[in-house]
Amino acid sequence: MKQESVMIEMNENLQGHVFSARVPVGAVELESGEVLSDVVVYVEWVGDLLRHREQAILLCHALTGDAHAFDTAEKPGWWGPLIGAGRALDTESHVVLCMNVLGGCSGTTGPLSICETTGQSYAGQFPEITIRDMVRVQHLALRSLGVTRLYAVLGGSMGGMQALEWACSFPSFVKHVIVLAALPVFSAIGIGYNAVMRQAIERDPAFQQGDYARYGVFPKDGLTVARMLGMITYRTAQLFEERCGRSISEQGTFEIERYLVYHGEKLVRRFDANSYLRLLSAMDGHHLGRNRGTLADAFGRITARVTMVGIENDLLYPPDSIKQAVCAAREAGVDAVYQEISSPYGHDAFLLEFDQLDAIFRDALAHAVPKNSIAR
Amino acid sequence: MKQESVMIEMNENLQGHVFSARVPVGAVELESGEVLSDVVVYVEWVGDLLRHREQAILLCHALTGDAHAFDTAEKPGWWGPLIGAGRALDTESHVVLCMNVLGGCSGTTGPLSICETTGQSYAGQFPEITIRDMVRVQHLALRSLGVTRLYAVLGGSMGGMQALEWACSFPSFVKHVIVLAALPVFSAIGIGYNAVMRQAIERDPAFQQGDYARYGVFPKDGLTVARMLGMITYRTAQLFEERCGRSISEQGTFEIERYLVYHGEKLVRRFDANSYLRLLSAMDGHHLGRNRGTLADAFGRITARVTMVGIENDLLYPPDSIKQAVCAAREAGVDAVYQEISSPYGHDAFLLEFDQLDAIFRDALAHAVPKNSIAR
Repeated sequence: MKQESVMIEMNENLQGHVFSARVPVGAVELESGEVLSDVVVYVEWVGDLLRHREQAILLCHALTGDAHAFDTAEKPGWWGPLIGAGRALDTESHVVLCMNVLGGCSGTTGPLSICETTGQSYAGQFPEITIRDMVRVQHLALRSLGVTRLYAVLGGSMGGMQALEWACSFPSFVKHVIVLAALPVFSAIGIGYNAVMRQAIERDPAFQQGDYARYGVFPKDGLTVARMLGMITYRTAQLFEERCGRSISEQGTFEIERYLVYHGEKLVRRFDANSYLRLLSAMDGHHLGRNRGTLADAFGRITARVTMVGIENDLLYPPDSIKQAVCAAREAGVDAVYQEISSPYGHDAFLLEFDQLDAIFRDALAHAVPKNSIAR
Repeated sequence: MKQESVMIEMNENLQGHVFSARVPVGAVELESGEVLSDVVVYVEWVGDLLRHREQAILLCHALTGDAHAFDTAEKPGWWGPLIGAGRALDTESHVVLCMNVLGGCSGTTGPLSICETTGQSYAGQFPEITIRDMVRVQHLALRSLGVTRLYAVLGGSMGGMQALEWACSFPSFVKHVIVLAALPVFSAIGIGYNAVMRQAIERDPAFQQGDYARYGVFPKDGLTVARMLGMITYRTAQLFEERCGRSISEQGTFEIERYLVYHGEKLVRRFDANSYLRLLSAMDGHHLGRNRGTLADAFGRITARVTMVGIENDLLYPPDSIKQAVCAAREAGVDAVYQEISSPYGHDAFLLEFDQLDAIFRDALAHAVPKNSIAR
C-alpha cells in the first residue's frame, strides 16, 4: 500500500475542537473473499491524537448513525453530553474517535462510492459486508492515524455488535469493551424485523434492484415504511401510550402514525437505501462464533474487560438474553459484567439516558484497570 | 324493509352439518352517518337454529379470519376442535354461528361488493366502518335468522373487540361474553403497527388509491409486507428462536424471512387490500367509551358476564393491560373475570391452544348461569 496523506479538518465545538478526516486504508479483502479497492474511512475525533494514541476510545455507531458523536455548534452529536473534559469519556486523558461504518453513507466507502473499475457508484453492486469487515476497516484506519491501543470500544445496537467483534478480532488492541443493547449472536426475531424492512425496500418498484440512481428514482416509500417499523421497535408500548395515546394529529391521522411517517420520511432525506440493506445484512450475519469454533471458543479469545448493558423493556435485545450472554462469557473466562438501564424508552435508551450512561461508563472504565495504567 | 328469502346451503361436517346463508339485512346507516344499501351478511352455523334460537352462540373472527370457524371435510375451521356435540361450544344445546364481518371479503358486504348506484365494486370508495357497525349488522342478521338471544358471544383480537361491543351495544341480548387477547380501548402501539401496515399498502404504486381492480393490478407487495409484520407481532421472539433460529432456507435466505414471506404472499391470494385497510381502521377506532360518556359509563351498560383472557407474552395485548381492563370493568359493576393462556405462541394462541381454550370456555359458560337455564 502506498503512503497516502490524510487531510484533517477542524471544527470548533463547545469543548474545544472536533477534528475530521477521510482516511484511505487501501484495498480491503472482505470476509466473503471479495475485494474492495481504495477504501476510505470517514473519522471524527476530539482530543489529542498524538498524545493519547495508546489511550484512544472508539465509539461505534448504530444502524442509521454516523461518525458525528460529538457536539458542535452546528449539530449535536449522538453521544455529545458524554464526551469532553472531565466527562465520562474524558478528552483530557483520551482521544475519542468515531467512524462511519464500512457500507454506510456518511463518508466511508459504501454503495454511494465510485467503483474504480466502472467509474460509477457501486449502488446495488456493492458487496455484502459483515460486522467483522467493519471492525477490520476501523482497525486499519486507526493504525493509519497512529493509534496503537484502544483504552475502550463502546457501542449500542449495531455499534455494540462491533464493540464485541473488536474484543474478539483484536484482543490485544482493546482494554475495555462496553456493549449496549446488543448480543453476541443476532436473534431470530431481529432477523425477522430486518426481513420485513428489507422486503419493504426491495419490493418498492423504484428500488430497481439497487440501481435506482441510474433511473433517477429512489425507493422512498419502501425506506419510509422500513424506518417506521424500526422506530416502533426502538421504543416501548408504554411510551407510545403516554406520548401519543389516541390523540389525533393536525393531519387528521392518529398522532402515532404522524410521528412514524415523519421519522420515516426524515430518514429518506439522509440515508441511502442500499446502505440500509447492507447494514441490515451485516446485522443478520452477526455471530461472534462464526468460523471460530463454538461461541465459547470465540469468547475465549477476549482479553478485554466486557461490560454488557441491557435496557428495560428492550423489545429487540431483552435484558434476560443479555444476562445470559454475560453468564456464557464469564463461563468462557471473560471478565464480563452486566449493567442495566431503567428507561421508558426501550431500545433507544442507549441514545437518550445520558445520566445512566454516564454512571455506567465511569464505573466500567475506572474498574479493574491497574492503577499505574490509570495514573499514566 | 321488504321480506327477503334466505337461501340456506348445507355442508356435511364431521359432527353433522354446517349450514351457510347469505342474509340480506337491507340498508344500514353506519356510525359515520353514511348509508350502505342492500347489505348482505354471510353466515355459517352448526346446530338447530329453530330449537336453540334463544341459546345461540356467536363467534366473531379476527382481522384476516372469516365465517368458517367450523371443521368440514373440505377445510378445517379456525375453532373447529372447540365446536360440536359435547364439546366446549356444544351444538347439542346451542346453535353456533359465525359471520364474515362487514367490510370483509369473504361473503359479507365489503369493498369487493357491487355498489348499487355505480354498478361497480365499491373498491376505494367503500366507507370507513367501525367495530360497532360490524356488531350492529351481525345483530340484524341474527334477527333475520330468528335468533332472539345469545347465550354467548366469543372472539379473539378484532373478534374480541366485537364481543365487547356486543355486550355494550345490545346488553339484553347477550348472556356471556368471552374476550380473548383484546382490550376495551385499542392501544397506541396497536395503532402504530397498523399504521406501518397501512402505509405499506397505500404506498404500493399498484394501490391506485384503492382503485387497483379498475387498473387490473393489485398491491401485492404492500399487502405482503403488511402481513409479514402482522405475523411477527402475532408470535413471540422465543418461538421464532426455537423454530427458526439462524437456519438458512432452501432459497438461501434466513428461515424466518422465508416463513414471513410465505405467509405474506399467501394472504395476497385470499384477501382484499381495501378490506384489510377498512378493518385496520375499524380496529384503530375501537373505543368502548366512544360517545358513551366515560369508559366506566360504557362498562355500566353491560349486563353479561364477561371473561377476559390474556395471553402470556402477547406483544399487542399484554396480560397486564387486560388485567387492568378487568379491574376497571369490575369497578364499574361488571361481573368480569380474568383468565390467562400460557403459551409460547403469543397473540395467536387464541387460534392454537385448543386445550386451554376448551377449559376456559367450559368454565366461563357453565359459570354463574341459573341452573334451570343450563338444564333446558
